[in-house]
Amino acid sequence: MAHSPLIKQLIDSFRCLPGVGAKSAQRMAYHLLERDRNGARRLSHALRQASEEVGHCQTCRILTEYEQCDICQSPKRDRQTLCVVETPSDVYAIEQSGSYHGSYFVLMGHLSPLDGIGPQELHLDTLKQRVEHENISEVILATNATVEGEATAHYLVEMLKPFTNKITRIAHGVPLGGELEYIDGSTLGHALNGRQEFK
Amino acid sequence: MAHSPLIKQLIDSFRCLPGVGAKSAQRMAYHLLERDRNGARRLSHALRQASEEVGHCQTCRILTEYEQCDICQSPKRDRQTLCVVETPSDVYAIEQSGSYHGSYFVLMGHLSPLDGIGPQELHLDTLKQRVEHENISEVILATNATVEGEATAHYLVEMLKPFTNKITRIAHGVPLGGELEYIDGSTLGHALNGRQEFK
Repeated sequence: MAHSPLIKQLIDSFRCLPGVGAKSAQRMAYHLLERDRNGARRLSHALRQASEEVGHCQTCRILTEYEQCDICQSPKRDRQTLCVVETPSDVYAIEQSGSYHGSYFVLMGHLSPLDGIGPQELHLDTLKQRVEHENISEVILATNATVEGEATAHYLVEMLKPFTNKITRIAHGVPLGGELEYIDGSTLGHALNGRQEFK
Repeated sequence: MAHSPLIKQLIDSFRCLPGVGAKSAQRMAYHLLERDRNGARRLSHALRQASEEVGHCQTCRILTEYEQCDICQSPKRDRQTLCVVETPSDVYAIEQSGSYHGSYFVLMGHLSPLDGIGPQELHLDTLKQRVEHENISEVILATNATVEGEATAHYLVEMLKPFTNKITRIAHGVPLGGELEYIDGSTLGHALNGRQEFK
């Protein structure tokens, strides 16, 4: 027995979501059709509206439907510190930590020449202009601690060095609650090299 | 920092999906907005179309956008055997097993008086009429092996007894691959009581 065409279309469409396989997609489709048609309509509406109206903040390139995002508009933020991250989720994670009050620039990815993602795709000229023309005292590179994230960070150092005095990289090391026994060697290497003196 | 209103609306809407919490909903929303807007539009369209057009098969009450589902239309199916299940997913699971070729009736739930789900909500009159007027030689009750499923099965036995000669219940027992050591007592009880002679 095959699902009817519309149900099949719905199940297939759910497959575009991260972490959703054939079984979960079927479960989601039947759940909505059997028990929550209003939820289905709301989700349909939210998807259409968001995919049509959400664009990028003109200053930091985070996802928003406004010209400028909350953070870039806020008068409370320190505009002399600029933190460069890969994705909007990274901004959200850093904001949740509560330990940063400066501004952001979101690359929306990392350099990946093989996938055709170069400086232009990451809008690095916008970043360069911001660092060049705004009065920025520190650029914090908070790209991921992956090969691509590191490579992107190194590229950014070279690109931004002429325009600012201070470029920093977030610390890599043992996460809080982490037991040394279970931490990989490269992380331990970073933790040792990045050791700080008690004051 | 709060998500922009449209992104927040999208994240909240994803929460109606089974097994999707705050974190997954955020991941899904950002994934679609950052990397797969076409997928988002397709999903939006599929959701709207399915939630508006998918109804119930007039014969077996499974979900379909047609008057009659594939199974009820198929000339290959045995119309003298009727299997009663709780949900369309159950039909799908039985069809996958490949060991049933009769027709179905889908209750779309189980009796649950406390939640206001009685015989009328499960369209039991349609079922009664089918058993009464069609030439059905066996009704197989394949509701879940839960308290509600068992109660529903017992209710159906009483209701259908006057109209058919043979009403059966699917076997409960040790699942294939199951080790007796890890099977609960009630299941083992069923397995023992339902034992069959070697032929």
